[in-house]
Amino acid sequence: MNSTIETILHHRSIRKFTNEKLTKEQISLLVRSAQAASTSSYVQAYSIIGVTDTGKRKMLAKLAGEQSYVEESGHFFVFCADLYRHEKMGEWKQEDVTESLESTEKFLVATIDAALAAQNMSIAAESLGLGICYIGGIRNHLAEVDKILGLPKRVIPLFGLCVGYPDHTSSHKQRLPEEHIYHENVYEIEEQVMKQQIAEYDEKISAYYEKRTNGRRKAGWSDQMVSMLAVPKRMDVKEYLLKKGYNKK
Amino acid sequence: MNSTIETILHHRSIRKFTNEKLTKEQISLLVRSAQAASTSSYVQAYSIIGVTDTGKRKMLAKLAGEQSYVEESGHFFVFCADLYRHEKMGEWKQEDVTESLESTEKFLVATIDAALAAQNMSIAAESLGLGICYIGGIRNHLAEVDKILGLPKRVIPLFGLCVGYPDHTSSHKQRLPEEHIYHENVYEIEEQVMKQQIAEYDEKISAYYEKRTNGRRKAGWSDQMVSMLAVPKRMDVKEYLLKKGYNKK
Repeated sequence: MNSTIETILHHRSIRKFTNEKLTKEQISLLVRSAQAASTSSYVQAYSIIGVTDTGKRKMLAKLAGEQSYVEESGHFFVFCADLYRHEKMGEWKQEDVTESLESTEKFLVATIDAALAAQNMSIAAESLGLGICYIGGIRNHLAEVDKILGLPKRVIPLFGLCVGYPDHTSSHKQRLPEEHIYHENVYEIEEQVMKQQIAEYDEKISAYYEKRTNGRRKAGWSDQMVSMLAVPKRMDVKEYLLKKGYNKK
Repeated sequence: MNSTIETILHHRSIRKFTNEKLTKEQISLLVRSAQAASTSSYVQAYSIIGVTDTGKRKMLAKLAGEQSYVEESGHFFVFCADLYRHEKMGEWKQEDVTESLESTEKFLVATIDAALAAQNMSIAAESLGLGICYIGGIRNHLAEVDKILGLPKRVIPLFGLCVGYPDHTSSHKQRLPEEHIYHENVYEIEEQVMKQQIAEYDEKISAYYEKRTNGRRKAGWSDQMVSMLAVPKRMDVKEYLLKKGYNKK
């Protein structure tokens, strides 16, 4: 164990921030930390948009589902998959790179690149005593977010990241048992084993919520998941991606 | 700056490892570090397969494009997007969650979840003095990798991660200029600005390669990228995903 691993294991999402803004130096250190992450074949297929404009922050907070911390955190970053510069380089060098850029493979590459960068930024921020919260909610209204940020073809917003000084303490949400997530050599597929692991986990999560809410809420993890998944959402993501030139082939 | 950020900024991929294996305790600490990452709406939509079987390691190294370190690193992890347990929970509770699971949105969610977890593991490993290397090459032959790991429906291998004790030093590959990756409020789209930034970056990268290879190689970044992208690869990813129940809607 060391301080880095302590930071990692201590992670909890922060949803209330003081109004202290990040400095330019902090933002630069966070961006450089993000960029230091591995990138598939050196493609660096992402961009990060920092939003400081208060009108834009307000709109993004609303579009993300009335998440006030999008507006109020010390800084708000939007991580985008970005193959625009690769398209331009193809044009400049008169090489046709379209089929490659439109492949599902490159959609995966750009998404993974962006996520690795974001997690580096998150750990760096937390190591500095800042709090973070990922905002998948920007995918509720991709076309609007796209317009607010002025994104060209082949640039798509994947998620936001609030970073700032925590103004509350939040508790750690226990994860699935290690032996349920981690398999050796072959995926453990035995249904009774899975069922038992999830049932035990459900009990723990249910007890956690019951305690936290004074008995008002006590759904286990599997109930939460199934209720959520029974209502499909963001079904327009596919079409948006196609329009932006992603995930086509 | 602190030791965590130093670890992050010091990252370089390691492609030669000593033959010392990771201990069970190290593996467990790395998996718990991975699990501590943020997860979209608590879905935890990934699994990690650790491969210790020498026959499987050899096959995976070959499928990944003769990358010997897949076979020789202290441990080899495969990060998978995993919505199988969610499907099972739907079955057990007799709720239809299929449309949700088959959405492009959930493909994104599971991929991002897995990538955040992997980057946590990478930083944790590097903080312990271990080296890492991501292996996108397992996507060269997804169906074969799938079979080797015995993956059920709705579980797909995304990338591998070699972790082990470094047996060489490698140099840091300079990233795109910060101002090229990071934008404020709106995406900087001015073509002459982009072109200039990339031209300056190309010169630096070209000088780096020239020095490292005693003049044998000196392509800049944009030349590298365009040559690579001119040849589409892994065009079967889309079909594989569809077969596994991902990215359909």
